Formats: sequence, structure tokens, C-alpha cells
Amino acid sequence: MISILHFGHSNFETALAAIVNRGETAQADVRERVREIIEDVRSRGDEALIDYTARFDRLELTAAGLQVTADEIEQALSAVSEESMAALRLAVERIGAFHAKQKEQTWISTEEEDVLLGQMVRPLDRVGIYVPGGKAAYPSSVVMNAVPAKVAGVPEVVMTVPMPGGEVNPHVLAAAHLSGVDRIFKVGGAQAVAALAYGTASVPRVDKITGPGNIYVATAKQQVFGQVDIDMIAGPSEILIINDGSGDAEHLAADLLSQAEHDELASSVLITTDEGMARAVAEALERQLKALSREEIARKSIEQYGAIIVAGTLDEAIAFSNRIAPEHLELAVDNPFEILPRIHHAGAIFMGHHTPEAAGDYLAGPNHTLPTGGTARFFSPLALDDFVKKSSIVSFTRKGLERLGKDIVHIAELEGLEAHARSVAIRLESKS
Amino acid sequence: MISILHFGHSNFETALAAIVNRGETAQADVRERVREIIEDVRSRGDEALIDYTARFDRLELTAAGLQVTADEIEQALSAVSEESMAALRLAVERIGAFHAKQKEQTWISTEEEDVLLGQMVRPLDRVGIYVPGGKAAYPSSVVMNAVPAKVAGVPEVVMTVPMPGGEVNPHVLAAAHLSGVDRIFKVGGAQAVAALAYGTASVPRVDKITGPGNIYVATAKQQVFGQVDIDMIAGPSEILIINDGSGDAEHLAADLLSQAEHDELASSVLITTDEGMARAVAEALERQLKALSREEIARKSIEQYGAIIVAGTLDEAIAFSNRIAPEHLELAVDNPFEILPRIHHAGAIFMGHHTPEAAGDYLAGPNHTLPTGGTARFFSPLALDDFVKKSSIVSFTRKGLERLGKDIVHIAELEGLEAHARSVAIRLESKS
Repeated sequence: MISILHFGHSNFETALAAIVNRGETAQADVRERVREIIEDVRSRGDEALIDYTARFDRLELTAAGLQVTADEIEQALSAVSEESMAALRLAVERIGAFHAKQKEQTWISTEEEDVLLGQMVRPLDRVGIYVPGGKAAYPSSVVMNAVPAKVAGVPEVVMTVPMPGGEVNPHVLAAAHLSGVDRIFKVGGAQAVAALAYGTASVPRVDKITGPGNIYVATAKQQVFGQVDIDMIAGPSEILIINDGSGDAEHLAADLLSQAEHDELASSVLITTDEGMARAVAEALERQLKALSREEIARKSIEQYGAIIVAGTLDEAIAFSNRIAPEHLELAVDNPFEILPRIHHAGAIFMGHHTPEAAGDYLAGPNHTLPTGGTARFFSPLALDDFVKKSSIVSFTRKGLERLGKDIVHIAELEGLEAHARSVAIRLESKS
Repeated sequence: MISILHFGHSNFETALAAIVNRGETAQADVRERVREIIEDVRSRGDEALIDYTARFDRLELTAAGLQVTADEIEQALSAVSEESMAALRLAVERIGAFHAKQKEQTWISTEEEDVLLGQMVRPLDRVGIYVPGGKAAYPSSVVMNAVPAKVAGVPEVVMTVPMPGGEVNPHVLAAAHLSGVDRIFKVGGAQAVAALAYGTASVPRVDKITGPGNIYVATAKQQVFGQVDIDMIAGPSEILIINDGSGDAEHLAADLLSQAEHDELASSVLITTDEGMARAVAEALERQLKALSREEIARKSIEQYGAIIVAGTLDEAIAFSNRIAPEHLELAVDNPFEILPRIHHAGAIFMGHHTPEAAGDYLAGPNHTLPTGGTARFFSPLALDDFVKKSSIVSFTRKGLERLGKDIVHIAELEGLEAHARSVAIRLESKS
């Protein structure tokens, strides 16, 4: 049974701390093991990839067989139903359209006649997408990572996906095909991350690695950060629902469970101003749990990291949400736009009673890669911006340097940087 | 004497590797020491700050004395000349104006009548700026970090600056005052980073820490990343100048030295298509070096990590630049805008013969915090965007869910996430 807490009561902070502080961090032995794998891939390249893939994925490959072939993709596509292709195509289109709106242009300023300033925006040259294999192989992850990269204009999107025992989810390959992924490699784990970061004879070095993975993958991404860019390191997933007593308890329970079924560390919290709704949702949860094939996982998640909180006022509920900075926030209230301006921190906000979080997971348009564990205070959803980089442009005319040079020299001298000052002064003194 | 290399000749790659692979990485003992300091500040708070400040900065403080007072700021301001105040004020204005152009608006889409999507942009709540003390205390660093935060709308900007022996550079405090810094604390090193990341009784916890620092500061920032956001970890600074034979050898030499005087690890490279220019710049360097007060540092930098490269063609020079992805790139050519579109990777680009890099360091407008060591392939200059975060907005009407629900359910089922599917289906089945 889910716990019902009362906002501000004596046990409230203790119960909350257990939820907020869940999540695993890599232990020293994982860090060490990952460091070894990365070093090994750096020095032995494809050979190391082949060895690890044989050991961890029970798959014997040759260097020539590391990459998924056009035939293998054709074969996967033929195993996917028309209906599935249509659904994935719709996801690719909608996610592409949303991320296209995030595009920034290269710009220059022309206010000053003697100094031109600007910012050049360019796609990254090559991006690597990590996709988990086995059961957690989600085609939606492929779409959410590859489509923004392609919309940003990245010329080459490389994907790695482990294929334990040679098996691959055909929907993952179909999603890659529809999203415009250029090359796919049959490797996973820390070894895949290492190959993407440093390159091997077969796997090209990329500029950024994105995508979800287990603790080995996350640790490897952390360790190669700086050599390449990475997306954020995702912690366990979470949802917070703010409710004002309106709506249907069965719907709210279903939304809590859609989070809880992910894994045992997922957290599903409802904060409502209506004690009756709190009890109704708790009962609906029990009923719905029993009908779920993933009941065991969802039940553990709900019992350990789930909660229904009864708040005195909607103000309290909003303040609580801002304190938690949830990854997913549902505003299950009658007038969600009325309270939107008071939401300060959340990865994605689902408005009103007809917007279950699952709508955002697949094809609404925004990315489903979102900041977890309170990091929505400072991190943003994965976006087009993750696949571009910027360069500043500074262009002085002789007149511009004459106008501003004196102050540049002055600050350089304040800082004791004589050669900085000199590089300006020498131009002002010269005739050319 | 600076080495003159010929593009593609036998010793070229070896000489280049020595330059590209310079830079220090934190050794295990530094990482361990920093980890201890962070733990200590987390558990003992102000007391730990006071202890470390006494030990490392020879400054005895009380908890009440950690923060710089209004009186101390007044006193610093009175020590700063009118001319210096005017120069710093100009820098604040120009940097503010440039970063204001980077502002993104919250937007919503209204193309679909039944599904509204959007992106909300909000400033971070509180930002911490690390400013080095002692000799390397640069007022320009304060401006470059604080002004974008303030322009982004960050309500509280907190700064830390160590004051060894109680001394502080008055220009640093003046820059903080002019940039709108809200509170300043007299601490530095890993302990300052720890205080900003976790908070103490006196120092408030922030959402992001930016600003330059030594290896202890950089390591501490790396270790608290995730608890808070950080800006990039800067490596040693560098400049690459592309020259087509036009311009003045003395100017180019002065620009190389403005980089070299920073520190011994700085790298200054000129690539020119003109062998005569190569020799002239090498000679000018020798002459100018002798006149520099920081000759020793600059000479070491030039001799170890400087080079003049003679390229066969401008195409070669551009390809070389794209391979290096320099932090600072000067296009010291007659028609810089003609080659700009071919520059793929650079932190900041300085156009033509009247734009020495130093112009960008202080007050042109763009940020002087730039990606180093080839990371301009994927990182961008510090920008307004670093001080905001985004939330996605998803709002379905009942009609929208009816239109798209079938495909959402379909993908959820493909992924075996039954509760996800259920959260949509239950709404489609219900009457409300």
C-alpha cells in the first residue's frame, strides 16, 4: 500500500528524505573496472571490443562484423508491422517538428558601424547514441536522441546497441532507420562508450555521446567527459502530480503506475489538497497494480518510493514541487495555465487532466530525456542545442579599435597583462 | 626562439603532438585531498571554511566575518580611479548588451488546435562565481561571469574570492559591484567550491558554479558536478592565427605574446602561407619578448608550446585550424569574412587585422570564457544560456488525446510498458 503523508506533519521530512535520496552511485570498484575497459579499448581498439562483446554479450564478432549491415536492417524492417512503422514515423515527425523550433540562427550585430559582433551556430560533426540492448531496448530512446541530432544538421549519427546472443529488437533498428541514424555498431557497455569517445579502426570517434544506459555506461560517460561531450547522467525516473481535487482518481493512479513500472527505484508522488482524492487514488492504485504484468516492480517502487501527500492548500503543493524540482510534473488541476507561471523547476510539465505523462514519452514532441533527482533546478531537457556548438565573432575596424582601444589597454594594464595592452597599443601607434 | 615548422613535413606531427597534449590533469593525490576538503566542509560548514582559510590564506576569520561588508566594498571603490571605473563600466555595459542578444523567450506552439507544446525558460535561482585571488585576480573574470548571470535574470549572484593575508584586489571588488554581484565571501580553493555546492550557515547553496581556478578548484568543480551545474573545466589557454601574408609582422608577434604571457602552458601558434612573414614574425617575437616584464613566462610558453607553421595554401591553414579547434582564432587575412564559413570549430574568432584577441578579453561583448584544448568541437563560449534552464510544456485536450492516443498506446505496448499504455487508454475509455 502506498503511504499517505500529511504535508508538514512530524514524519513528513523523514519519509521525504528516503524518496529524495534514493538512487545508486557508482562504487569505487565499478569506477576502476570501467577505467580498465576504457584503457583497453584505447590501446587494443576493435580487438578489445570483440573480446568484451564475446564475454559480456555472448556474441562472437569479427572486426568486419561489428557494424550492422544494410541487409540486417532490411531484415529487421520486414519484421515490423505496418502499424508500428506508422506509429514510429509519427513520433519521428512530431519530435522533429518540435525540436526544429529550438533552432538558433547564426547572427551578427550591426548596431555599431565600427565593431561587428556575432555568434556562429554549427552542428557537431559526429554524434554517438548509446542504446541499451535486451529488454530495456526502447525504440523511443533512439528517436529522442537521433532525431534532434539530425534536425540540428549533424552529418553523421552513429549508434551503438549491444545484441546479447546476437538478438536485437527489430523496432530499435526500425526507429534508427526512420530517424536517419547513419551507422550502427553491435557493441554495448563501457566498451561502446570508450569506442565512441576515442575511436577504433571500425568505430569512428564522435564529438558527443548521448543516450541512457546502466551504471557501467553512465560511469564510462562520466569518465570520457571532456574528451567528448556527454548528455546529463540520468538518475532514476520520477513523477510528481499536483492535484486540486478535480479529475478522476483512476487516471491519477494510472499515471503514478506508468512511472512506477519503469524500475524499482522510480518514484511516484501525488500531492493533493483533497483528502478524499488521496484515499481514492490509494485504493485505485491497489486495484490497478493487481492487473499489471509488471506488478512486482511497480509495487516495490510504489511502496518504497511512492507517496500520496495531503497538502493544506495549492500554494503548499506548488512550493513543495518547486522544492523537489521533479523530472515529470503533472498539473492535474482544472486550470493548469493559471499556476504554470508559479512552477520554477521541472523537466517537463504535463498540463491538465488529458495529458498523461506517457504522451510526452513517445510522440508529443518534446524530448523524454529530462533532468532527474532535483537537477531540473539547473539542467534542461535534451534539446537541439545539445547537438550544436557556438563560436563568437569579433570584428573591429581601425576606427572601432581607436574608439575602444584606450579602455582595453587600461583594463589590460590593471590586470598586469602588458602584452595584452601592447597588442592593442601597437596597432593604434601604427599607420596601417 | 620560436620553432618554424613546415606543414606536413617529417617532424610536423611530432612537434604538434607536444603542443596539443600539454596541460595538467589532477593526480590521484589531488583528487583525494579535494574529496576530503569537500567532505569536511559538508560536515563542519563554516568552521571548516574558517580553518582552511587560516591555513591556506593566512587569514583569521569568524563566521560573521566570512562575508565582505558594504564598508569593505566602499573602501575598495574609493581606491579605484575614475578612469578605471569608467573602463570597467564600459565593459559591463558592452558585455551586458551582447549577452542580452542571446536571450531566449518562453514559447508555445499554437499550430495544433488540440495539442499545445512549448518551452519555458527561467533563470537559475542562485549562481556562485569563483574568482581567484592574489596575482591572478582579474576584474574581467568577474564581469564575464557575473554580467551574463544578471542579464539572464538570476536573482542572487554569490561570489567567492580568497584574500590571502587579508588582501584583495580593489578592482575585483569594483567589478563585482558594477556587475551586480549580491554577496561576496572571503574564501577560495576547494573549500569555496564545496561551500557553494552544499551551503554552510553563512554561504548559501547555489545551483551553478562558474569561473576559473587552479587545479584544486577545477577538481572540486568536477567532483560537485551533478550536485550543482558547473561551467566547463578550462585547460591552458591558446591562440591560433591564420595569416595569408598580409598585415604587419609586429602586430602578429604582439598577438602571439598576449597569449604567451598568461602562463607557461599557454600555446601561441601562427600558421601562414608566407615564408617571409614566418621569419619576420619570429624576429619580431624575439625583439618584443625582451621588452616584456613577463618575459620569462612568455618565453617559456613560446619556446615550448609556440610555433610558426608555413603552409602551402590557405586551404591547408584552414584545414589545420579545423583540426585543432582553437580556443582563440585570429583570421589575420585581408578578407576574413570570405573564409569564415569554412571555420568549423573555434571558441572565438577575431576577424582581420584590427581585431587583436585582447579586444575580446575585456570589453568587445562576447564572453572570454571559451572552450580550450580542442573542445571547441563540442563546447561553446560561456553564454546567457548557462544561467537559465528550460522546462517542456505539453498540453493535450481530450480531442488531442483521441487523435494521437492510439499511436502512443501502440508504442508503449511495443516497449512492453503496459502501465504507460494504460494511462492513455483509461482516459480514452472514460466519459470525462
